[in-house]
Amino acid sequence: MDIKEFFELSAGKWFSHRTSHHLAFKQSEDGKSDITIEMLTADDPEVVKLCQQYEVDPNAASCGARVSWNGTMEWDEEKHTGSTVLVSVPDPDNFNQGKLLREMGYAEKTPVAGRYMMGSDEALTLITEYETMSSEERLWFASPNLRMRVSVLKRFGGFSMASFTSEIRMGGGQPAAKTADASTASS
Amino acid sequence: MDIKEFFELSAGKWFSHRTSHHLAFKQSEDGKSDITIEMLTADDPEVVKLCQQYEVDPNAASCGARVSWNGTMEWDEEKHTGSTVLVSVPDPDNFNQGKLLREMGYAEKTPVAGRYMMGSDEALTLITEYETMSSEERLWFASPNLRMRVSVLKRFGGFSMASFTSEIRMGGGQPAAKTADASTASS
Repeated sequence: MDIKEFFELSAGKWFSHRTSHHLAFKQSEDGKSDITIEMLTADDPEVVKLCQQYEVDPNAASCGARVSWNGTMEWDEEKHTGSTVLVSVPDPDNFNQGKLLREMGYAEKTPVAGRYMMGSDEALTLITEYETMSSEERLWFASPNLRMRVSVLKRFGGFSMASFTSEIRMGGGQPAAKTADASTASS
Repeated sequence: MDIKEFFELSAGKWFSHRTSHHLAFKQSEDGKSDITIEMLTADDPEVVKLCQQYEVDPNAASCGARVSWNGTMEWDEEKHTGSTVLVSVPDPDNFNQGKLLREMGYAEKTPVAGRYMMGSDEALTLITEYETMSSEERLWFASPNLRMRVSVLKRFGGFSMASFTSEIRMGGGQPAAKTADASTASS
């Protein structure tokens, strides 16, 4: 699987349930969101625009995705809505890894480019370095309709948070839904 | 890393924080435990006894561990204490995988043998088939003092639960604690 296939499998509507373990406090926090992921082709104007912002040749992009979310966090109970565009730019010498451009990070207001690696075990690893923290996330499919994510956050060199997200496809005629029951997470 | 090294790294006392996502109900449940893991050599009487119960040649065992826990689950608030013995029996033709014998499963009162696979990414995968369900668990170290586990439970062919556990070493002079700060999960 390459990152384009991973994005294709990810396209659709998902119920996303995230639990964050705040390691120093031994406390967990739940967040629930509806997420929509749309594939963008490499020549989509949004992909081209993001490449230009990062001063990357748009011809080097392999694909993109728009991710939109609408959810609540347990501790503040406010509505969190937003969206971002992701663009993958494979390394010229190794198509299994490269840069991942983001329109806006979940935690930052400025554009941040991460690194991605597509493993031989079909898991996608994303590493993002922010000014005062770094995040490493591993995403994989337990089945076409159950996506899993684990991330760890480091601040000032020490692990501060570990998060787990289970995502259940809500259906809607996306590609992967054709091959499996889209109404449940069963495989 | 082989499974013996993985067990050695796991030896010690851990604060274990588990969150289970009950997929059909979109609910999560927290559990917190203190866990103690002790290495057992292949010739330990408990290892030999467990091999005999499974009718496995004790000479085929590579190592063992005693795991003890003491914790609470959010929903019932009862104390859960117990312990089990694990014994790894590598396949003769491939030492990176084999049988994992258990004195008692977390969910079953009868002995259940699972399969283990030690990946090239230093993650340990455990697959256990019960009568009406199966579990697949992936364990890995984010650092010597932060162990992570993700498991999925299938019942009657469909995913019913996904669980995430972060485990922070509490110290106590175990081997891995010599190489890193044992009082925190920092690496």
